[in-house]
Amino acid sequence: MTGEEREQRQQREERAMARAQSLALRGPRGVNPQVGAVLLSPNGDVLAEGWHRGAGTAHAEVDALSQLSADAARGATAVVSLEPCNHTGRTGPCAEALIAAGIARVVYAVDDPGLRSSGGADRLRAAGVDVDAGVLADDGTALLDSWLTVQRLGRPHVTVKWAQSLDGRAAASDGTSQWITGPVARADVHRRRALADAIVVGTGTLLTDDPALTARGPDGTLLAEQPRPVVVGTRAVPQSARVRTHPRPFLQDEGDDLPDLLDRLRELGIQRVFVEGGPTLASSFLRAGIADEVLVYVAPTLLGGDRLATGDLGVPTIGAQRRLDIASVDRLGDDLLVIAHPISPAPALLPAPALSKGDT
Amino acid sequence: MTGEEREQRQQREERAMARAQSLALRGPRGVNPQVGAVLLSPNGDVLAEGWHRGAGTAHAEVDALSQLSADAARGATAVVSLEPCNHTGRTGPCAEALIAAGIARVVYAVDDPGLRSSGGADRLRAAGVDVDAGVLADDGTALLDSWLTVQRLGRPHVTVKWAQSLDGRAAASDGTSQWITGPVARADVHRRRALADAIVVGTGTLLTDDPALTARGPDGTLLAEQPRPVVVGTRAVPQSARVRTHPRPFLQDEGDDLPDLLDRLRELGIQRVFVEGGPTLASSFLRAGIADEVLVYVAPTLLGGDRLATGDLGVPTIGAQRRLDIASVDRLGDDLLVIAHPISPAPALLPAPALSKGDT
Repeated sequence: MTGEEREQRQQREERAMARAQSLALRGPRGVNPQVGAVLLSPNGDVLAEGWHRGAGTAHAEVDALSQLSADAARGATAVVSLEPCNHTGRTGPCAEALIAAGIARVVYAVDDPGLRSSGGADRLRAAGVDVDAGVLADDGTALLDSWLTVQRLGRPHVTVKWAQSLDGRAAASDGTSQWITGPVARADVHRRRALADAIVVGTGTLLTDDPALTARGPDGTLLAEQPRPVVVGTRAVPQSARVRTHPRPFLQDEGDDLPDLLDRLRELGIQRVFVEGGPTLASSFLRAGIADEVLVYVAPTLLGGDRLATGDLGVPTIGAQRRLDIASVDRLGDDLLVIAHPISPAPALLPAPALSKGDT
Repeated sequence: MTGEEREQRQQREERAMARAQSLALRGPRGVNPQVGAVLLSPNGDVLAEGWHRGAGTAHAEVDALSQLSADAARGATAVVSLEPCNHTGRTGPCAEALIAAGIARVVYAVDDPGLRSSGGADRLRAAGVDVDAGVLADDGTALLDSWLTVQRLGRPHVTVKWAQSLDGRAAASDGTSQWITGPVARADVHRRRALADAIVVGTGTLLTDDPALTARGPDGTLLAEQPRPVVVGTRAVPQSARVRTHPRPFLQDEGDDLPDLLDRLRELGIQRVFVEGGPTLASSFLRAGIADEVLVYVAPTLLGGDRLATGDLGVPTIGAQRRLDIASVDRLGDDLLVIAHPISPAPALLPAPALSKGDT
């Protein structure tokens, strides 16, 4: 193959990859990754396209192969947005299906991080298939961001959000809190709700504030994407609760085992969880060390008093503090948004040598 | 006078003003303003210089005049860094002294904001003296910044400083707090201490932390300027307390009347007060509405628990919240420094129309 031929092939395959990535988005976001595939003839003609339609259905490569007669894919190139799997689940391993179909070359964007499903590229190479990884890898990683995060964490990604005064209060002494933060901050919360798959609230907040838990625009209209409401706690959800009018049915969980709750949410295909319901629930997630991201909307106000935005975080002494890595601090109208990631495990913090006790 | 002559005069007078402003700094910072004066002959030669050496001594203009024989200042120009006073205190009004000496022209930088002492320029003009105000006014205002603030407020300027976790705690549950904030933030505190005339701490903090209350460099050495330590509370300062080794003697006050304390500090010439000693004292100043500036060093950590950085601020309901105008948010190492000014009176905050209750 000449350099020019190689370059032409690369261009064809990148075009096909962009198409495969767009096909991927036709499938549902859920337990399985969104994957698309395009089969190219040795001349670069598109032979077939496919995508994954969700757990229990054919993977993208097999979906594409299924549209061709027995020998039509022989010598073809499979362009796939994720490394073909090497795992026999409800469907057979895609690597084997590609080998059996006589595919000569496989191009993919992102390595499969799964413990059981990875190894497809090695299997293909062992069978003599030409494999090229990392084509349009950045786009492929962005496409699968939430799913890849779930694979990495072994559970959905958890964002814990709260609004507070500068001095860490969620409300005035009588419980009133509307509005501590301004409209720009509240609109930001709604945008982020729409990016989450589930929104989690405690029954305390539910009974006190009766939140709608919907993602809405500044004019109050529902945004296109709505997170699934999850109510945590044992108290009953009143018949009149606004959460019952949410476009998606709510789930209720006792909340005595948050990792188990996250496991079950993961099985429902939930990849991003937005915890915003009340100091008690937020503190439970923080105390359990299952917050990947903390969003603190800080209003330019002081409240004092005992309505705290966080409760007991299990920090008996300063060495056990829950240090954060602050990713950004932004002004949202009059408010601040601090986005931070808990540092785990907490590093040992030694006193600086030059300054001695009593120096605060 | 030709345009060229006028320009030459302006240059001479600006040079003399710069000299007067530098002479001003030879006097003490205190109850009275730091003022310098230069007397110029009609040809622009320097006849005499003077500055104010503190309450009860001659004002700068009179100090300069006193160096000349009776008629030597006749027809001269007085260049003064502050409007000559019109007030008979322990010394006579400078406006009268300038008139009596036959001064033909007075140039000054900054208007005297004092209720009793102002009006000097009007008095001079009424006596036929040529008066030009606002020469090098920016430098003059900067020179007198703290004193002018005291005149405007009617009391010393009060900065309330504390360090806290992002969630508003000053310490872990067992009281340990060293170090929540990092070395860059701590060095910033020390620089700001050196800019204050007094540093105020509660006896609770004194007894718990035994702070030195000195302004120190990163290597622990004392900075050139040291704030006067003020201990607030009724409990006795132990003989072994580090504050007793402070280069300046400490004052103790019961703290039952903070405005009265500030009055007395003002009488001692204290213009800038740095309140940094403990949640109880900080809350007292905030509750009383006598904080002109709030410095919150926010460490990237969560502590939870009950060791709050602020106590009761007298905010029974959200409408009574103590809103702040955030002047700046800066990263200091890993920490944030939020500088804010309390907004007084608190504005009425109406709910936004499009978003309804239960939307936090």
